[in-house]
Amino acid sequence: MPTMLPLLGQDACGLELARPAIEADAAEALALRVKALADPTRLRLLSIVAAAEAGEACVCDLTEPVGLSQPTVSHHLRVLTDAGFLERTKRGTWAYYRLVDGSLDALTARIAAI
Amino acid sequence: MPTMLPLLGQDACGLELARPAIEADAAEALALRVKALADPTRLRLLSIVAAAEAGEACVCDLTEPVGLSQPTVSHHLRVLTDAGFLERTKRGTWAYYRLVDGSLDALTARIAAI
Repeated sequence: MPTMLPLLGQDACGLELARPAIEADAAEALALRVKALADPTRLRLLSIVAAAEAGEACVCDLTEPVGLSQPTVSHHLRVLTDAGFLERTKRGTWAYYRLVDGSLDALTARIAAI
Repeated sequence: MPTMLPLLGQDACGLELARPAIEADAAEALALRVKALADPTRLRLLSIVAAAEAGEACVCDLTEPVGLSQPTVSHHLRVLTDAGFLERTKRGTWAYYRLVDGSLDALTARIAAI
C-alpha cells in the first residue's frame, strides 16, 4: 500500500502556499507572548520601564503613573516577567524591573515573519 | 494662584524618564490590535493568508488547515479584519482574504517604539 505524503507548498485543502505557514506549536508559543502585551496597562508599564532614565523602575514608582493598586501592578509585572519581557531584581523591600534586552525585537521579528 | 505644571521627563511619582512613555489612549488602541493577534488560530490564519501563492485565500480553503468549523474560522477572520490586518472581498458565494499591506509592519514598529 503506498505511503501518503503531503504535497510540498500545498496544504491539505489545495491552497497553494509560497512558503510554509507558522506551525501550530509555534503559533501557541507566539500567542502566549503576544497575549502578555494585549493589555493597555501592561503596555504602559512596559513603556515606563523601557523609558526609565535609570534603566529600571521600582514597583513603588509604577503604581501612581497607571493609577492602580500595588497588587494589581505587581500582577501585571509578573505576567510581563513570565513572558520574558521584564527581569526582576529584589533589593531590600522593593522589586525593580528592567526590560530584557532584545525581547521586543525578537517578538516583532517573529510577528513580521509570520 | 499658580498653575501646576507637570515636570518634563518626570512622572507624577518622581521616576525619571528619558523619553515620554506611551499615553493611556494610545495604549488602549495598541492593546486592541495586539489582542487580535493574541490567539494561536488567528496567528495561523494570518500566516496562511500571508503565505498564499495567490496573495489571497478563500475562507473555504482555511477551515481544513486549522481544523475548525467555518463559522469559527469566519469569526477569527472577522476579528483580524476589524483590527486592520486582513481585507475581505466577496466573490460569488465565498469571501476571500488578503493581508493589508504594511499592517504588520505598522504594528511591529509601534511595539518596537514602546
